[in-house]
Amino acid sequence: MSNPTAAMLVIGDEILSGRTRDANVQYLAGALTNHGIRLAEVRMVADSQQAIIDAVRVLSDGFDNVFTSGGIGPTHDDITADSMAAAFGRPIGIRDDARAILAARCEATGNELNGARLRMARIPDGATLIENPVSGAPGFTLGNVHVMAGVPAIFQAMVALVLPTLAGGDPVMSQSLRVLRPEGEIATPLAALAADFPQLSIGSYPFQKDGIFGANIVIRGTQAAAIDRAMTRLAALFPEAIA
Amino acid sequence: MSNPTAAMLVIGDEILSGRTRDANVQYLAGALTNHGIRLAEVRMVADSQQAIIDAVRVLSDGFDNVFTSGGIGPTHDDITADSMAAAFGRPIGIRDDARAILAARCEATGNELNGARLRMARIPDGATLIENPVSGAPGFTLGNVHVMAGVPAIFQAMVALVLPTLAGGDPVMSQSLRVLRPEGEIATPLAALAADFPQLSIGSYPFQKDGIFGANIVIRGTQAAAIDRAMTRLAALFPEAIA
Repeated sequence: MSNPTAAMLVIGDEILSGRTRDANVQYLAGALTNHGIRLAEVRMVADSQQAIIDAVRVLSDGFDNVFTSGGIGPTHDDITADSMAAAFGRPIGIRDDARAILAARCEATGNELNGARLRMARIPDGATLIENPVSGAPGFTLGNVHVMAGVPAIFQAMVALVLPTLAGGDPVMSQSLRVLRPEGEIATPLAALAADFPQLSIGSYPFQKDGIFGANIVIRGTQAAAIDRAMTRLAALFPEAIA
Repeated sequence: MSNPTAAMLVIGDEILSGRTRDANVQYLAGALTNHGIRLAEVRMVADSQQAIIDAVRVLSDGFDNVFTSGGIGPTHDDITADSMAAAFGRPIGIRDDARAILAARCEATGNELNGARLRMARIPDGATLIENPVSGAPGFTLGNVHVMAGVPAIFQAMVALVLPTLAGGDPVMSQSLRVLRPEGEIATPLAALAADFPQLSIGSYPFQKDGIFGANIVIRGTQAAAIDRAMTRLAALFPEAIA
């Protein structure tokens, strides 16, 4: 598929310690798929400036778009903005437009625009702000890197604002069939089917539940007619399957 | 912290397409934390041999242990074993010990040991098998890379078998405090606390629910007494907090 590509960088000790289960990868993956952008790689790194810098440079070079989540709040462990500035050699400081957003937000909520909150107005030079309709503090786009919050509600709102600005490709469609037979029984005809449809991606995702082994067969691609043809063949191969 | 390090490589189109939400990262992260191994990085890549090879080489060089999930089944999209052999320049073929495991399993379940199932006996030369008590097909350890199934029940069983064989460090303990104040209000005293306890990791993980902004403050480290002292100071800073 020649659709644009993307990578995601999840920043946060809480994911790597096992304390928190990431929710943003799946959300972004689905949104990108619908927009015709292929999520090609995800990396999760700790709250370490060097780890963030190394990862974002590689991903920015390797993919059309990069989305980061986490580390843009006001606390000492929020080091994403400064790490992005360092990664791309940009100066960083409190920017007037970001400060104005935070000031308006504080006025509306009766909070003080203190030094900690002003940290959230630190934006690398040349970046474009991403609005945060939930809690005010903006994200930003620097080059092809979109820097967003880790809190899922805010992350999702920012994705919704950024995606329409990005070139998409043909939406990737999928159909699936649930087969209650072990993968070892279906692998050979499935491989032949996959070979006959090189323009499609045919995946087999096994499961076992209550001692029953089965697989979800998922056919993905940008050509609806080809997916239909492949699904017809698939259903004929495994007539007992549950769609 | 000087504990041993680990990285995880999640292999599978189903994660990157948004179809499936990964469950193995959080499980492994928690198990490693309890064993005193620090999960330092996670990568998720598609079912692409080159992507798998590139990632596993970098992670194997960079960390003490690498754990992979996914792609060891019998279907055409299961390319992990061959990718590992290619990454480390090892020959790969059907190995007698793995074949014997699969043959015994097929005998017990009344299944045929067909060509597809025999694919799961392809093991790189020099690897040590990892038992699969759920469905038979083994994983393997090659150098410092532990290659395991993606199905969570099997992944978890394999982690339980591999972990006791690995050198662990001091278990990382944590305590947390839930503070119902926005991060902007707590950031400054929290930064001072973090500066006073450089041997600990103090993280602030914001949330917003029903219009209320708060944060979970998590103090992590290997020294229980220091964690206790820091928690006492933390509780005094935010007496209204919910432990």
